[in-house]
Amino acid sequence: MSTKETLARVALTWLAEPGTRSVHRLVDRLGPVGTLDLLLDGGAPDDTLRATVAARTAAGDPRAVAAEALARADRLGARVVVPGDDEWPTRVEQLRELRLPEAHRRVDTETAPPLCFWVRGSWPLAEAFDRSVAVVGARAASGYGTHVATELGYGLADRDWTVVSGGAFGIDAAAHRGALNAGGVTVAVLACGVDRPYPMGNAALFDRIADTGLLVSEWMPGADPLRPRFLIRNRVIAAGTLGTVLVEAAARSGATQTTHRALALRRPAMVVPGPVTSAMSVGAHELLREHPKSRLVTGVAQVLEEVGRIGELAPVPRGPQRPADQLDDDARSIVEVLPRRGAVGVEVLAARAGVAVRTVLRKLSMLEELALVVRREDGYALAPPPADAGRAGQGRRADGRPTPAGERPG
Amino acid sequence: MSTKETLARVALTWLAEPGTRSVHRLVDRLGPVGTLDLLLDGGAPDDTLRATVAARTAAGDPRAVAAEALARADRLGARVVVPGDDEWPTRVEQLRELRLPEAHRRVDTETAPPLCFWVRGSWPLAEAFDRSVAVVGARAASGYGTHVATELGYGLADRDWTVVSGGAFGIDAAAHRGALNAGGVTVAVLACGVDRPYPMGNAALFDRIADTGLLVSEWMPGADPLRPRFLIRNRVIAAGTLGTVLVEAAARSGATQTTHRALALRRPAMVVPGPVTSAMSVGAHELLREHPKSRLVTGVAQVLEEVGRIGELAPVPRGPQRPADQLDDDARSIVEVLPRRGAVGVEVLAARAGVAVRTVLRKLSMLEELALVVRREDGYALAPPPADAGRAGQGRRADGRPTPAGERPG
Repeated sequence: MSTKETLARVALTWLAEPGTRSVHRLVDRLGPVGTLDLLLDGGAPDDTLRATVAARTAAGDPRAVAAEALARADRLGARVVVPGDDEWPTRVEQLRELRLPEAHRRVDTETAPPLCFWVRGSWPLAEAFDRSVAVVGARAASGYGTHVATELGYGLADRDWTVVSGGAFGIDAAAHRGALNAGGVTVAVLACGVDRPYPMGNAALFDRIADTGLLVSEWMPGADPLRPRFLIRNRVIAAGTLGTVLVEAAARSGATQTTHRALALRRPAMVVPGPVTSAMSVGAHELLREHPKSRLVTGVAQVLEEVGRIGELAPVPRGPQRPADQLDDDARSIVEVLPRRGAVGVEVLAARAGVAVRTVLRKLSMLEELALVVRREDGYALAPPPADAGRAGQGRRADGRPTPAGERPG
Repeated sequence: MSTKETLARVALTWLAEPGTRSVHRLVDRLGPVGTLDLLLDGGAPDDTLRATVAARTAAGDPRAVAAEALARADRLGARVVVPGDDEWPTRVEQLRELRLPEAHRRVDTETAPPLCFWVRGSWPLAEAFDRSVAVVGARAASGYGTHVATELGYGLADRDWTVVSGGAFGIDAAAHRGALNAGGVTVAVLACGVDRPYPMGNAALFDRIADTGLLVSEWMPGADPLRPRFLIRNRVIAAGTLGTVLVEAAARSGATQTTHRALALRRPAMVVPGPVTSAMSVGAHELLREHPKSRLVTGVAQVLEEVGRIGELAPVPRGPQRPADQLDDDARSIVEVLPRRGAVGVEVLAARAGVAVRTVLRKLSMLEELALVVRREDGYALAPPPADAGRAGQGRRADGRPTPAGERPG
């Protein structure tokens, strides 16, 4: 794509917020340069867009602003990526088809694909997004949510999946940290310039992400993190990834918005449940209750099963295998009616289990073979359990993987 | 029903464990007296039943055992209830139609309705079961599970619903305690005689239940709590109630069995989620993942919505209402681009929000009316929030009800 077209895309993103459908339709028809010319000549096709353009141009010349932004990005080692570039993440183009049910607010109707991305970090953008999962959730995350998000980030990165999230405190930061701890690729999609990631409190984290992953934004360097931009940004997180996992969300929360976009895009929309006593899981549970297509997940194996790569099916959790699992009904009945302490005779066993005496005798010899029953002078008794019985399978992570240690510097 | 028929039902329940389908079919055809005569004459229709009857009769005369049990029940103030009695809970008859998918074990195939119930407590059995919900779960419940079960028991009883559960430690006991604390009716369905409820550690609880609710069993007074009986009993908990709530269950747990029976009976099967880090919620989450008909619930209001009485719909959880909720897109954009601190001029607002200056002026005067924005010498600023803003809706229970205090003596 020519420099002139790139500059026009940057200028258009500055003129009207990203996602504006009328601008996107014009670009489809006239190209970015023709669209910019038309809008600056006062030829916007509707009053709203005309007013928006007028208000913005009152604050500066769009072409000059765009040129300055490109120069600034160059100085700080950021680049701009546009459709047609090798590293353009084509999956976001599906935002063309995104239609949200009951959309009234601008942020729910103006969900066109991005016109450009600003990128900091060495990974090609498309490659980073290729095998990626979004992990999103509350800023005011609980210790529980932070723990789960860190584990998910770690587990995904450890299996060579990219983690994608915003840059907020709480779940976003925890997911990035988990991925960084596993030495994986993580992408922070920002609602402001990639040179001044917000919030400042995550500055060290953003530096680590830029070193080994990517900082990405639709807004030019220097752009402010205005509040509506977080919601505009969320459509990219949902559309750029193969699925979205929601870890914690309060009853009314922007975090559920990304999941709703994933649902509308027919991407896997996964939700981690939590204690019903926690205000930070109310939004998550409500999503699971209201959306039949949303899917409860409890760990990384189940997430990967949803985003569906062959050979990455999650094992169904099972309790520890017991020798008694293989027994037939008669044998199990006999074991079950044996007293916990002491021994009993064959006739008593037969009566208690409701099994004929000769069957009891046959099953008992098999149970002796299996070391489940012992014969004593006073009758038959349960064999003593092995020393560690009853603890097997306890206290492990559901997926059997080690817990990542605390953060190490990147 | 005649004393002779009642005695025959008691004897049949002793001869073969409750739920045995071949016995139930004979009773349908021949009545209880005829069935008992047939079986004691060696006329059982299949080898298994014949062997069972032979093994039991070797231990005693069924008619004498039954007569002794009836006399013993009389002495301790218990009664036997049989079909045709006013207080027979007819809902359990639906067990005739219960067919479990992939049933191989005896406990999953032998799920015929009870032949009789032994009852301790003054409530008529059918009346107690009429508006009832089962609350079941793990014995080794966590503090979280115990808390949730207590709240559910309290909330159900407080709304005049009967709580039904087993007699185990953990979730069962917590649900009963919650119901007792609310002064409600609670029913413990036991897997042993109502005169010797198990476990002993719940003895004081059983006494309280017998005082104001019911202790119920299919097994005669004096009967042992043999292990298979807990699973046989579960079908009654599922079939006697209008729905079953599972609070906590490990990966492999008898607690999920009752819920599976509720699902097979097409009754609401509800599951309370928990932390994915808790081994005691693994079985609950697996049920929610595997069974599309199972329903996630987070509190008593949602439980009552499932068991479906008009006027008891659960409110959808919402965050606190904010004045900004009623704003149109332009007004919201203006509020959102106002800085958190300090003031800005109208032109800057227009440029940032992408809204024409005259629109900004119109919206600002409305926002001033709503006390969302204040005009200052240096421009417009966000109005300071009310003192308690941001805390509203936090730290409350999902259903907004008070937490029951600790147990008070009944």
